[in-house]
Amino acid sequence: MSSDERWFQGHLAELDRDECLELLASTPVGRVAYCDDEGPVVIPVNHVVEGEDVLFRISGGSVMARRLGPVAAFQVDAFDDFRESGWSVLVRGRVSWVDLDGTPDEARPTPWAEGLRDLLVRITPTTITGRRLLPA
Amino acid sequence: MSSDERWFQGHLAELDRDECLELLASTPVGRVAYCDDEGPVVIPVNHVVEGEDVLFRISGGSVMARRLGPVAAFQVDAFDDFRESGWSVLVRGRVSWVDLDGTPDEARPTPWAEGLRDLLVRITPTTITGRRLLPA
Repeated sequence: MSSDERWFQGHLAELDRDECLELLASTPVGRVAYCDDEGPVVIPVNHVVEGEDVLFRISGGSVMARRLGPVAAFQVDAFDDFRESGWSVLVRGRVSWVDLDGTPDEARPTPWAEGLRDLLVRITPTTITGRRLLPA
Repeated sequence: MSSDERWFQGHLAELDRDECLELLASTPVGRVAYCDDEGPVVIPVNHVVEGEDVLFRISGGSVMARRLGPVAAFQVDAFDDFRESGWSVLVRGRVSWVDLDGTPDEARPTPWAEGLRDLLVRITPTTITGRRLLPA
């Protein structure tokens, strides 16, 4: 079957901000995106949501620590391969650095990966958008 | 338990290029990332892999069609929330536009989502990197 012969395709619906925030907090892994001189970079991290901000931890010795600029994006999604459906949420925002020592435990993301992740990064949204792909 | 009190954390291992390409082709959904004036954007799409190139379709009327520049990234991953493990692959590369009409069916990604996706985009890798997060 060619891609142009499919009779039914899933319907895309915009998500409102509350739905986006709920989904953003529903998953323990999201993806940080930033731009360097060679274009975009996308890296999975464990995150938490505090209000509308996204918090995650990185290592001070990492490439991201050197390259992360004043703006970044954070993306989460989930898909059902069988039903060919899913959802995605994209936060675009401003980056700030948080004092890890002064942060209560519940606002500290717990990285699954080993290694000292001594920097706490906050993304404060300028836009939050999301879409749900409903099964055909 | 505070995040600093965890005794065991998963081990990160680099993936070689062949493993990355295999994983890239193993999933029907990946994420395109590009940079515009306000920073990075990350959008899920259905893709296929042809050699080492990633192909996906977008609508000529979409924001991405207007904003996608000469470089982009393509990211795929999968995680096991229970075992706190997973893998991710990042392709950074050059963007080119392909004639959809001249493309054989097997090289045409089939979008799950409705809507005319009349532009076929190819990302030719400059770098392919990936990591596996092994359970603790």
